[in-house]
Amino acid sequence: MTLPRLLARYRDQIKAGLADVLQGEGLLYAILRYHVGLEDERGVAGNHMGKLLRPSLVLFTAEQLAGKVNRALPAALGLELVHNFSLIHDDIQDGDRTRRGRPTVWSRFGVDQAINAGDLMQALAVSQALLAGKDAGQALLGATVEMIEGQGLDLDVEAKVVGVAPYLEMIDKKTGALIRCAFRLGAVVASAPAKIEKALLELGREMGRAFQIHDDLLGVWGDGAVTGKPQGSDIRCKKKTLPAAIAVSRASGAEQTLLRELYDKQALTDEDVKTVVGVMEQVGARQVGEQMVVDHLGQARAWLAKVPFSERGKEEMEELIDYLARRRR
Amino acid sequence: MTLPRLLARYRDQIKAGLADVLQGEGLLYAILRYHVGLEDERGVAGNHMGKLLRPSLVLFTAEQLAGKVNRALPAALGLELVHNFSLIHDDIQDGDRTRRGRPTVWSRFGVDQAINAGDLMQALAVSQALLAGKDAGQALLGATVEMIEGQGLDLDVEAKVVGVAPYLEMIDKKTGALIRCAFRLGAVVASAPAKIEKALLELGREMGRAFQIHDDLLGVWGDGAVTGKPQGSDIRCKKKTLPAAIAVSRASGAEQTLLRELYDKQALTDEDVKTVVGVMEQVGARQVGEQMVVDHLGQARAWLAKVPFSERGKEEMEELIDYLARRRR
Repeated sequence: MTLPRLLARYRDQIKAGLADVLQGEGLLYAILRYHVGLEDERGVAGNHMGKLLRPSLVLFTAEQLAGKVNRALPAALGLELVHNFSLIHDDIQDGDRTRRGRPTVWSRFGVDQAINAGDLMQALAVSQALLAGKDAGQALLGATVEMIEGQGLDLDVEAKVVGVAPYLEMIDKKTGALIRCAFRLGAVVASAPAKIEKALLELGREMGRAFQIHDDLLGVWGDGAVTGKPQGSDIRCKKKTLPAAIAVSRASGAEQTLLRELYDKQALTDEDVKTVVGVMEQVGARQVGEQMVVDHLGQARAWLAKVPFSERGKEEMEELIDYLARRRR
Repeated sequence: MTLPRLLARYRDQIKAGLADVLQGEGLLYAILRYHVGLEDERGVAGNHMGKLLRPSLVLFTAEQLAGKVNRALPAALGLELVHNFSLIHDDIQDGDRTRRGRPTVWSRFGVDQAINAGDLMQALAVSQALLAGKDAGQALLGATVEMIEGQGLDLDVEAKVVGVAPYLEMIDKKTGALIRCAFRLGAVVASAPAKIEKALLELGREMGRAFQIHDDLLGVWGDGAVTGKPQGSDIRCKKKTLPAAIAVSRASGAEQTLLRELYDKQALTDEDVKTVVGVMEQVGARQVGEQMVVDHLGQARAWLAKVPFSERGKEEMEELIDYLARRRR
């Protein structure tokens, strides 16, 4: 699958910016360069980076609204770094040993230094964003707070997610906050009027929902070799995914009891995971989820139509939306 | 020991400010209120806060230089929150189950939510500091980065600390960065000239060194019941403390070998810890450390003389310095 133009265009610029911000000396900076994919496991420069979706959206939005790519770069880098700091800490919490097919930070360097590395990355991130102005810094911090609140909710065993509404509330924070922030940062740098910013935030909300639901589906029915993340690990970690939310609310009688028993267990076996997947499939969680992705992407397109992007800009956004809907990792 | 006037004066104001910043809903905010000591273990409002040294220094400095206590408050709160976020994550890394005589966050709420709580507190901290201006925010972020670099150095098993010079370099980051930042934030809010800021930073450096060395000595020879932290836990965690740095550089022959063997062990027994303390005492680490505290406090007093504080202000700083030198926790 070729990378959409919107993601391909800014890639080198973002990569160079990240290399610049993370060039510090010592173990922690080496860990950060490894984590974002600037270096391989032997510290050799490489290209193992992710999609760079969020920073690309910042640059694209600023360019479309005011032609200001360079001024938006620090904000874009700050956002990508916040995203990456959260991944470092997520991997500890989920016990995931691989990400994008490479060992995670904690599994290579231990939990203690993974905590430090994430902490450092958060501070560097906000420092960067502030270079684009105080408003950009505050916008990034606001999104960071929301994202962590969502993460806290996700891991709160007391806060059960039953049904789709509370699930959407959680992912609007956990995942949506940073996607919306991408559009907000672009708008802030471009000094866009409030009405445009609002439409962009709605676009971001819909994209964020489609993105996370798609991710949740890949976690259960995707190919672990392609996603780079062991299949079923979300179930094993009892994460509050969409298939889980649907299964818990739709399953009835014996299955309901079975699910509760499994989710109360200390640790799930491979067999348990299979059982949970079976219930999810039986209640049609996969189809419901796929339809939700389609619906939210449709909403995203509707909001896109209201934003003063160029015709070509809108085309590129459509292309990105299609890509996100079809991606297999 | 009565609290020095400098710490007593701003206590209520800082407490009210913290309560305001941490009033959010949900588990994570409850964890943060518990951690800073605004609430007890049942969520009931209480007063279990620490010395509040850093924010008091921010307010005092701003007041002395320009009479601007209120404008400095968000910066002071931001600094205290950065300090506290680092404690939450430190306690995970050190495996410490108690702090100030209360269960640590990870031991009460688990490691996962302790990571989230610390992350959230860092973001809230910087957000606060930005309310005092972009310069205050950047100053706090700079200190945060340095502090985490120091923490990374402390936990880097490859980076051995032998001798006093590398030890001082490490604590100037790990502990000194936030103490210096207290004076810097006061100076920034007061728009003090560079020369005064420089003298204040030197004052902060000396205070930070005296403070950390005193802490290291308390960790080995203090009373666990008073410090609120189990005695010998620094040794058990193989932290790079002053007594350890002195022991490793002064011990000769058999003791040197013994120390290396012990520090290479996966886990130290109570007996091992006693052996290490024995070597520390034999090489005079305690006396050397106590003399260093006296020396750095003397240097601090010399820098204090160069700062344009009022006579009464200088008296209060002297009182604080004496207090820090004699504290037992």
